[in-house]
Amino acid sequence: MIDFQSVLNAINDDASNVKERGEIADYIPQLAKIDVKHFGIHLIDSQQKNFSAGDSHELFSIQSISKVLTLSLALNLIGEDVWKRVDVEPSGDPFNHLSLLELENGIPRNPLINPGAIVIADILVSQLEHPKDDFLTFVRNIANDDSITYDESVAISEKETGFRNFAAANLLKSYDNLNNDVEVVLDFYFHQCSLSMSCEQLTHVFYMFMNHGKCRRNKAYLTLSQVKRINAIMLTCGFYDEAGEFAFEVGLPGKSGVGGGIVALLPNKFCVATWSPGLNPKGNSKIGMLALEKLTTETELSIF
Amino acid sequence: MIDFQSVLNAINDDASNVKERGEIADYIPQLAKIDVKHFGIHLIDSQQKNFSAGDSHELFSIQSISKVLTLSLALNLIGEDVWKRVDVEPSGDPFNHLSLLELENGIPRNPLINPGAIVIADILVSQLEHPKDDFLTFVRNIANDDSITYDESVAISEKETGFRNFAAANLLKSYDNLNNDVEVVLDFYFHQCSLSMSCEQLTHVFYMFMNHGKCRRNKAYLTLSQVKRINAIMLTCGFYDEAGEFAFEVGLPGKSGVGGGIVALLPNKFCVATWSPGLNPKGNSKIGMLALEKLTTETELSIF
Amino acid sequence: MIDFQSVLNAINDDASNVKERGEIADYIPQLAKIDVKHFGIHLIDSQQKNFSAGDSHELFSIQSISKVLTLSLALNLIGEDVWKRVDVEPSGDPFNHLSLLELENGIPRNPLINPGAIVIADILVSQLEHPKDDFLTFVRNIANDDSITYDESVAISEKETGFRNFAAANLLKSYDNLNNDVEVVLDFYFHQCSLSMSCEQLTHVFYMFMNHGKCRRNKAYLTLSQVKRINAIMLTCGFYDEAGEFAFEVGLPGKSGVGGGIVALLPNKFCVATWSPGLNPKGNSKIGMLALEKLTTETELSIF
Amino acid sequence: MIDFQSVLNAINDDASNVKERGEIADYIPQLAKIDVKHFGIHLIDSQQKNFSAGDSHELFSIQSISKVLTLSLALNLIGEDVWKRVDVEPSGDPFNHLSLLELENGIPRNPLINPGAIVIADILVSQLEHPKDDFLTFVRNIANDDSITYDESVAISEKETGFRNFAAANLLKSYDNLNNDVEVVLDFYFHQCSLSMSCEQLTHVFYMFMNHGKCRRNKAYLTLSQVKRINAIMLTCGFYDEAGEFAFEVGLPGKSGVGGGIVALLPNKFCVATWSPGLNPKGNSKIGMLALEKLTTETELSIF
Repeated sequence: MIDFQSVLNAINDDASNVKERGEIADYIPQLAKIDVKHFGIHLIDSQQKNFSAGDSHELFSIQSISKVLTLSLALNLIGEDVWKRVDVEPSGDPFNHLSLLELENGIPRNPLINPGAIVIADILVSQLEHPKDDFLTFVRNIANDDSITYDESVAISEKETGFRNFAAANLLKSYDNLNNDVEVVLDFYFHQCSLSMSCEQLTHVFYMFMNHGKCRRNKAYLTLSQVKRINAIMLTCGFYDEAGEFAFEVGLPGKSGVGGGIVALLPNKFCVATWSPGLNPKGNSKIGMLALEKLTTETELSIF
Repeated sequence: MIDFQSVLNAINDDASNVKERGEIADYIPQLAKIDVKHFGIHLIDSQQKNFSAGDSHELFSIQSISKVLTLSLALNLIGEDVWKRVDVEPSGDPFNHLSLLELENGIPRNPLINPGAIVIADILVSQLEHPKDDFLTFVRNIANDDSITYDESVAISEKETGFRNFAAANLLKSYDNLNNDVEVVLDFYFHQCSLSMSCEQLTHVFYMFMNHGKCRRNKAYLTLSQVKRINAIMLTCGFYDEAGEFAFEVGLPGKSGVGGGIVALLPNKFCVATWSPGLNPKGNSKIGMLALEKLTTETELSIF
Repeated sequence: MIDFQSVLNAINDDASNVKERGEIADYIPQLAKIDVKHFGIHLIDSQQKNFSAGDSHELFSIQSISKVLTLSLALNLIGEDVWKRVDVEPSGDPFNHLSLLELENGIPRNPLINPGAIVIADILVSQLEHPKDDFLTFVRNIANDDSITYDESVAISEKETGFRNFAAANLLKSYDNLNNDVEVVLDFYFHQCSLSMSCEQLTHVFYMFMNHGKCRRNKAYLTLSQVKRINAIMLTCGFYDEAGEFAFEVGLPGKSGVGGGIVALLPNKFCVATWSPGLNPKGNSKIGMLALEKLTTETELSIF
Repeated sequence: MIDFQSVLNAINDDASNVKERGEIADYIPQLAKIDVKHFGIHLIDSQQKNFSAGDSHELFSIQSISKVLTLSLALNLIGEDVWKRVDVEPSGDPFNHLSLLELENGIPRNPLINPGAIVIADILVSQLEHPKDDFLTFVRNIANDDSITYDESVAISEKETGFRNFAAANLLKSYDNLNNDVEVVLDFYFHQCSLSMSCEQLTHVFYMFMNHGKCRRNKAYLTLSQVKRINAIMLTCGFYDEAGEFAFEVGLPGKSGVGGGIVALLPNKFCVATWSPGLNPKGNSKIGMLALEKLTTETELSIF
């Protein structure tokens, strides 16, 4: 029996001693204000036992981690039709590149790069009556936590500086792979990215990906096949240009965000989330990567 | 307890009924002669029990599957220094593209695309006294099977038509990422690709990747960390432009070759190899993919 | 002494007999309505003698031809500072590609591809008090013709379907190479492209490029050096992916537009404009290209 | 009447005073030995009057300038069929890039980039009985100068380091756009590039491009149409990634080589060659560019 709490404590001790903590993402002004010294980690195991260390209850902007949740809702709503509009292959490109999009006729490489996530956002805008409210309700229900909410100041901040996302959305529109207005889709997209959660809340939402699609209250939001699909995409595409490195160093399906959060999971075993706002040059949380590497090394739990 | 033999029998029955069996790779004349109707499958479990169906004892050209074995020997010889000359990220490109190589200053994206495998071949040519003999001995030792050998006619056939590989090797040379003569390195490379094995022999070699680096006779050829690294690379990069699809449909680390072979494994559980020479448009065995999908669906065994 | 009128008559006769007249650009709904049978040609020589044949007085949308005029005004206003924000090299890409823009840090390859022209539009929006009015006045003054005007219906039509231009403008903005709001810059850009002119009017405006920067009334709008620069850019970049072909077949600096217009000139000798709305696969007027080829072949007048 | 001799003297004076003379190409060891201080210029006018200054009679390696001569011989031998295997558009890429080659199915963008010149070399190897001898005879005949010869030491030097050209040739072969053996074609190619000439000799060869295809003895080697085609290609593609800049700064069709030579011409007026071995970052002779700019500025002779 693994003593997760001891491991988390040790990780937290290590994390507080790291001098070079990476760079805060400054292209979103609202995120640039965060103190680089934060670190939190939370783990929930298959028996729903919770383990915590550091700033695990502080809220942060989950950013791209939200792409896994919108993808889940899209699969829940229209099933495999999602794959007519977005592919499932790693991109081999940094997270904000548009080149490959042009070469493949407007079909983004996967739903976890920005153009792919914008297509998923477009699907939700089409399918939901009140897209922003309904998506928030979906997330709250999975987590069984009505305190989860958008951070309007972050959403506004992103809207004012998100020119590359406007470029991607317009390019998708030029390829007829965006059905709604660019402004409407991106308003939704900037809101999904602005979701504020703590490490603990993140694990409560992502618990379903290690539990065959069922949330902590045993309600199914995804089929087993859909969970397998999403976990495979997280493993191959979840870390931008560093997916291969993460697959080796950590060996778990997961997803990072430029807010400094990372969530990862071992099917049937546990789900873990870390937060440290400093990023490495590839755009992933520097100390979060180290923390998860230590977790899988210490516990010898990984999919490989 | 899973009855692997029944599952393999069912897969074999299904496979023989498929009408559209894909296209034989015709760019290597020697491979173009194979009958598209072949199908074989072999599985070895963690207790070294063997299960077979179809043409599981027929020899075929393992082609790119050999890249995993040369990588293993290179890691065995020079350890992590391998990663100074080749990266570990998915390429997002078809298997024979050179473009990304140019953009990243001569460092191939990963060791399983052709330019990456040619760099690995260069390492072995530098490190081994008798490269072709020594590599063959390495493979035979792992498998405990001295009957394994190169198919000279395939090696010659590839040499005569492998202009794209000559292009890649020369490009690497122009970036100072090839230390030996192009001719010498490619002679080794074409030989490694010409290795002839049956499905059964393939599983006997790849057994070590599901057994913490130890072969069937319990001799260690790789550290646990190296095995984890190679399995991660197989999962993210093992199927050219179809890695994401394979990760989902099959959910196992594995590697395919244009000879129609595929090998895959579940750590601590089993290693399986299939052979069917017809390829899908992405260059992977069409019926092999279906067979492995059925295997993991029926057994519910996958890493996700 | 060349009898231009006879040559123009012969060209017009030929043009009316061509069966395959190319495809009307249909991505701008307003342009899709034009009859493909139109053909007009007008030539003005260095003594300001005018020669005409066919529909040379009918108005059409000059589209990308306007990029030469906005560039002229930008050079007139801020001189060589223009080249800090846009380069002068051929792009080797179709007219609507964004890829190269990404590779070169937001500096478009030249001012005649869309992203380059959008940067020039941004300069004019910054420099002019009433950009649309002031640019129109500039064009009218050069031509000495106050009847020249924008076609609002075309401008609106382009705005509603110009997603690729919105993508380019946002991408430029993300690279800090657009100082004004995307909406404002593109409103100007869509208006400049909607300028309606006849072949005759076009030659009256472009007369200055064969006359050392001076209009028909001898007023200088550009320095000799600026004229030389613009003529060089027209020759190397004026015909999208067909610049090399045009340089050979016609051998004159010139510029085409998807409305089917082409204007070209031989320094010190003549300026000529053609109009035929059907385009070849590269996006240039099919019969216009043939007409200009015949003109330079018959008269043996070309820069080479 | 222009006093060319005075202009050349002034240019030579200026040239000797320039401190920053650019970098010698060091990737061909044999070229790296040249003294950066050399400068020569030679001009021949339409009446075959010769004007010289500086090291105009010293021999240097003409390198890529030879591509115009092999293209001329290929056109002479098989006419327009040349264009089935190579295009005529500017590449928008540095001189040694392979990427675009891959995107356009093995058809190089133009005959003046390396892959295009290798295709032309392949044509000559197929068409000529003794390719190297016959091409040399062709050049000697045009120049009426039997002293012109290959520099074997340069040819050997290039062969030993020309991995990028081997890559390009093999890539062309993989696309079936190379009919002869890579070794044979590149042996020819490295020899053509090793041609040694002085500025004076270069103008004697290129005289035909300003004289309707006829050499100084009035023998026709090219049709007028072929000359026009080659001049157009020189103007749009003759200076690698700096074609647009040269078209403006100099305004003449021309071609540069990494040996530091440049040849340029004004149809019906003059042909000029310069030599200064230091290159600018784009790979063109730094002082040669300045010299030609001064020539056209002072004489006000340019095609624009």
